[in-house]
Amino acid sequence: MRIGFIGLGAMGVPMAQRLVQAGHEVHGFDVRAAALEPLVQAGGKAAASAAEAAAGADLLWLMVVSGEQAASVLFEHAAAAALPKGALVVAACTQPPALARATSDRLSAQGLTMLDAPVSGGVAGARAGTLTIMAAGPGAALERARPVMQAVGQRIFDVGRDAGMGSTAKMINQLLCGVHIAAAAEAMHVAERAGVSLQTMHEIISVSAGNSWMWGDRGPRMMQEEPPVTSAVDIFVKDLGIVLDQGKAMRQGLPLAAAAMQMFLAASGLGHGAADDSQVIRAYRALNGAGKR
Amino acid sequence: MRIGFIGLGAMGVPMAQRLVQAGHEVHGFDVRAAALEPLVQAGGKAAASAAEAAAGADLLWLMVVSGEQAASVLFEHAAAAALPKGALVVAACTQPPALARATSDRLSAQGLTMLDAPVSGGVAGARAGTLTIMAAGPGAALERARPVMQAVGQRIFDVGRDAGMGSTAKMINQLLCGVHIAAAAEAMHVAERAGVSLQTMHEIISVSAGNSWMWGDRGPRMMQEEPPVTSAVDIFVKDLGIVLDQGKAMRQGLPLAAAAMQMFLAASGLGHGAADDSQVIRAYRALNGAGKR
Repeated sequence: MRIGFIGLGAMGVPMAQRLVQAGHEVHGFDVRAAALEPLVQAGGKAAASAAEAAAGADLLWLMVVSGEQAASVLFEHAAAAALPKGALVVAACTQPPALARATSDRLSAQGLTMLDAPVSGGVAGARAGTLTIMAAGPGAALERARPVMQAVGQRIFDVGRDAGMGSTAKMINQLLCGVHIAAAAEAMHVAERAGVSLQTMHEIISVSAGNSWMWGDRGPRMMQEEPPVTSAVDIFVKDLGIVLDQGKAMRQGLPLAAAAMQMFLAASGLGHGAADDSQVIRAYRALNGAGKR
Repeated sequence: MRIGFIGLGAMGVPMAQRLVQAGHEVHGFDVRAAALEPLVQAGGKAAASAAEAAAGADLLWLMVVSGEQAASVLFEHAAAAALPKGALVVAACTQPPALARATSDRLSAQGLTMLDAPVSGGVAGARAGTLTIMAAGPGAALERARPVMQAVGQRIFDVGRDAGMGSTAKMINQLLCGVHIAAAAEAMHVAERAGVSLQTMHEIISVSAGNSWMWGDRGPRMMQEEPPVTSAVDIFVKDLGIVLDQGKAMRQGLPLAAAAMQMFLAASGLGHGAADDSQVIRAYRALNGAGKR
């Protein structure tokens, strides 16, 4: 297939490289021209604009950071107009379900089909080709896109026929991720204040019913003063913001997501927005005091 | 060793049986006389009172439902007075750290040593002998008790020298368990309302970063109308109550635990206190409406 690929960030580069390795003709574009180099080295082609990457493509993969950016690429930067009629657009960004639906509708009116297909697994999953993809859209479109998706993802889930359902599934994952990180910080903070060894506490929970994926991943970084930034506090301000906006649109009270959001907001307000999201524990220390009591 | 074992409930029976199989002389007692039968059949001995079970024991294992019951057995029902000087008391119940400390102090004054050693793993873990034990107390006492603990537990953690630290570790596990069950219900409820297949949603999260032990265990029961009761809503009203009481005593705001508690309280107030704790999802349905919107 001829694939246009927009957004060559930390996840986009290894994904686009895998598409080349799978035998596809990949035309990449990123606003940062230097980001194209690793794709070209892997055998892909550098496009001078989003529209040039889209021209003649069977499938346009959008790996940008938000639904607003996806819409901008498609409509302001004319990538949609450059696509042949009948082409597929894979919107792999994390975005509000309503925005995914609106973009899908605009593309349909131009004779294009969108799959609302956000991914989970982060940079590590992108490098290993083990991403989870939550895809919603017409069944025939999903089947056409499946071989392409399988080049970058280990698990491809069919979430439903309507655009917005993929984004809803992703949003639900982010709800759980955000609550679990904040809960891990709350638990670690109680252990700190009670004088229980954090290392022992981490081992206990890792083999107990209180375990979570986030406890295993973020817990060790909560014990570090300045851990490397794998994903920033402000990313969860954004993602839990999408969750709560969607809850508002659906008229759904989401008390745990709301409580977790306040702790990420507080961490950001304390000046730690760019710190690793494990550092939401600093908001607990500010709230309740640090050290053993 | 000669072991007194008080509390032959769903977890106590298989634990006491394992102690017999490991070669110990086990004298059991329970307020329900019929509860002694499976222990006697396994080769243990039935005591007529808590004090009789404690008389001559090297180690008294308390597997009762609360710290208040443990104190009642020890002091009102005179099990402590019946124990030989130097005997060990293993308080394996879930209780507030301050109560564990107070009971330990009273036992010390009588020449007895207590290990504050709550367990995690439930009935399944008790049957399989795979419980996690979080033990705090004098190092020498822990080493004496360790072979006994290994007969019922797979992982024995040394949480520290002070009574109360074992209960603190257990409380932190319960904090995470309670928040994770409520978060799973919040997520499942959003999926229900958005019309996403709950089965697909469960599969997605199980391979994504939003996964938790509770999602895997309670999630499937959230999809059932009347699931079997593995642990009741009111158990988490109790356990999150201990968490929040301890937070109050430590002057610690615990926003996620507090939010989760409100949902368990609401589920109980709606009349579902005896239902499986997965049914905290009914509080979300009452709050936000049921079915797809």
